[in-house]
Amino acid sequence: MRKQPTVESVDLLVLGGTVLTVDARDTVVSDGAVAIRDGAIVEVGPRSKLERRFRARRSIDARGRIVLPGFVNAHTHAAMTLLRGVRDDVLLMTWLEKYMFPLERRFVTREFVRWGTRLACWEMIASGTTTFADGYFFEEEVARAVDEAGLRVIAGQGIFDVPTPDSNGAAEGLARGERFLSDWTGHPRVTPALAPHACYTVGPRTFQKTVGLAARFEAPVLTHVSESDGELAMVSERYGTTPVRHLAALGLLGPSLTAAHCVRVDEEEIALLAAGVVGVVHCPESNMKLASGVAPVPEMLAAGARVGLGTDGAASNNDLDMIGEMGSAARVHKVASLDPTAVPARVVLRMATQGGADALHVGERIGSLETGKRADLIVLDISGPNALPLFDPTSHVVYSARSDAVQTVVVEGKVLMDRRRLRTLDTKEIRNQVTRFGRRIRSALA
Amino acid sequence: MRKQPTVESVDLLVLGGTVLTVDARDTVVSDGAVAIRDGAIVEVGPRSKLERRFRARRSIDARGRIVLPGFVNAHTHAAMTLLRGVRDDVLLMTWLEKYMFPLERRFVTREFVRWGTRLACWEMIASGTTTFADGYFFEEEVARAVDEAGLRVIAGQGIFDVPTPDSNGAAEGLARGERFLSDWTGHPRVTPALAPHACYTVGPRTFQKTVGLAARFEAPVLTHVSESDGELAMVSERYGTTPVRHLAALGLLGPSLTAAHCVRVDEEEIALLAAGVVGVVHCPESNMKLASGVAPVPEMLAAGARVGLGTDGAASNNDLDMIGEMGSAARVHKVASLDPTAVPARVVLRMATQGGADALHVGERIGSLETGKRADLIVLDISGPNALPLFDPTSHVVYSARSDAVQTVVVEGKVLMDRRRLRTLDTKEIRNQVTRFGRRIRSALA
Repeated sequence: MRKQPTVESVDLLVLGGTVLTVDARDTVVSDGAVAIRDGAIVEVGPRSKLERRFRARRSIDARGRIVLPGFVNAHTHAAMTLLRGVRDDVLLMTWLEKYMFPLERRFVTREFVRWGTRLACWEMIASGTTTFADGYFFEEEVARAVDEAGLRVIAGQGIFDVPTPDSNGAAEGLARGERFLSDWTGHPRVTPALAPHACYTVGPRTFQKTVGLAARFEAPVLTHVSESDGELAMVSERYGTTPVRHLAALGLLGPSLTAAHCVRVDEEEIALLAAGVVGVVHCPESNMKLASGVAPVPEMLAAGARVGLGTDGAASNNDLDMIGEMGSAARVHKVASLDPTAVPARVVLRMATQGGADALHVGERIGSLETGKRADLIVLDISGPNALPLFDPTSHVVYSARSDAVQTVVVEGKVLMDRRRLRTLDTKEIRNQVTRFGRRIRSALA
Repeated sequence: MRKQPTVESVDLLVLGGTVLTVDARDTVVSDGAVAIRDGAIVEVGPRSKLERRFRARRSIDARGRIVLPGFVNAHTHAAMTLLRGVRDDVLLMTWLEKYMFPLERRFVTREFVRWGTRLACWEMIASGTTTFADGYFFEEEVARAVDEAGLRVIAGQGIFDVPTPDSNGAAEGLARGERFLSDWTGHPRVTPALAPHACYTVGPRTFQKTVGLAARFEAPVLTHVSESDGELAMVSERYGTTPVRHLAALGLLGPSLTAAHCVRVDEEEIALLAAGVVGVVHCPESNMKLASGVAPVPEMLAAGARVGLGTDGAASNNDLDMIGEMGSAARVHKVASLDPTAVPARVVLRMATQGGADALHVGERIGSLETGKRADLIVLDISGPNALPLFDPTSHVVYSARSDAVQTVVVEGKVLMDRRRLRTLDTKEIRNQVTRFGRRIRSALA
């Protein structure tokens, strides 16, 4: 007589739908299911099997939909949503020096960061992002806003040598950073980090102190590397070398570092990044809009570098939409290399999920739908005309899906959006507060 | 005593909202209104004024929204929605010869075109397109589907020298074309046209006959020009020149011609296109995905060419979303030229509306919101988080809006979509039919 399998209790079952696991073999389960308990994935497999094996307190009907890991937006500045589209189509240095820096000096306060981050959380949940990496000021406000929203974040306290909206200089910034790391280390969804801005705004001593402080807390370090020719010129003038080589010489390339952009890196620098297990974050839309260039993503992937995808801040994108970002990534490398096989859909979807998790060095915990991973997933509706007919779900997600198709968002096993209704945010209050900030900024611009 | 202004009757008043007219001066009316009678725009102006002046049988409340001309998708192959994402990320010639051409030979029938075009109409209305230019087979089916859907179209019957799904060769194709022009000329929304495919698939004699036939009906001619290096090589081998020079030598450049792509054109060819008042249609996403290159749009605009925007077919895009296309256009030229001021939002919005109308040589009738133009407009919702805060509505439309924000679509004064409900299409039936085609194509691919 065959033994009846034991029925296990779980908290949540996502039942039906095509499951894109993004595991090492890109396994796709048609009519699949995901079982979740205590915020973790217990099993991913065929629906018929999981239905027999598990009994759930709650289930989500995903039949006729696509289930995939939540997106990892591996580089953004969430609160900059409040400066979305404040000035477009201007030269990078004009944009920074005439608009961004003065506006930030004038407007970036604790409240600005709080409401800007809440707005960003709204936009990200509604478009399927479950984890993001942030670098900004008053980062404890980011941590709090994300904690309330239920999202996952690597929150990097900004470190500069010059005065910033939250510090008079590096010493105060580092003290702030230490307090932040000390207060938040160990939180299940908020990983506090330090974000030394870039080689041209953070000198070698401050950069080394920052990395040393982060190491004491085993905290990640997020920075900008080789975004533009302007940056290369400044670093070359000051240090006689390139940003990657400069960081390598300082001994700062390592598996806790995540480098956004890496647009202007040569073959040797790519090898340094890969050998150093540095995470790289590709931000195609921001790099295109600011005319920074096209990062050598195919070459970085071929070298074995950990490459994730990010939107950058909404001031230079102008949205936080990872589905749009995937399409841009897939397209820009094809035209830049004149090779239509470059950066195919499968690779782009990986960059937007597991690749981003790897680039942030949390790839063991999130990024794919596999047993033991934290339960961060999204359910995509495919009833729109742009999903008809549907030959390949991965192609659909990258090339024709639109982020309003995101129906359900689960982070750490908790439902943050259910049939497009946000469960953790007071969107009316966010709208009111954000509209007030918008009015004040508009009159300052006038 | 001041004379009381006469109150005029109109059919439809769109009341409130920020009106982006896209007139010659890019006039923006905040809290504006549009009055419509007999399918035409009677007046555009401040709401307070138009409310006093007109009494309407019906009104649309657009307060807190953006009102703009419907998009003109100036180059597509509507029925190719049925081949959406059938194969991505492969070499252009492999894609064409191994997949597209065999699939078309096997599957493209009258029914295929009917249902594929209906699906495309659904997708286009739902994303704010009010006019499109089409080139395909069984074009009378396109005309009928568009007529029923209430959209506006320049419908180009495909002409090739080789046998096609609807003709045994050029002679039969031209006979078909003549019947088509004769049957549909004079329709208020369907402009029949001829679509000689390209210089490498249509020989000089057939091309000249086609243009001659079109001239007899004062019909537009739509073709593909200089899309890829492969095309250039073929044209060079056969005619010892480039496609634009070849057409110029044949005397075929003129103000009834619309040339899609123009990716590989030099300065002299740009001058020929501008001097010939040829319409040019830029298809950035298709050109990127197929790795064709980046068309010299800033140079063509500077030369005074009529440049519109198109998605191309869904087999190479993979959607018909003009809002996404605008974002791609705005970004790709900045990074291609390393100039962040290239192709600003205002220019892109014009390309997607009036520019496309001009490129199709119907710019006197549609493309902007001005007295006397046909009443083709859309209303965009701006209540989503990606519209917060909103500093510049044109920047929003190009850089952060998403096409699900299109609430209302009006063509020729008739409401085709109202608060996202489609009024002219049986979407359930389209889904059923299209799913059947999808199944058959899928099994052929397996």
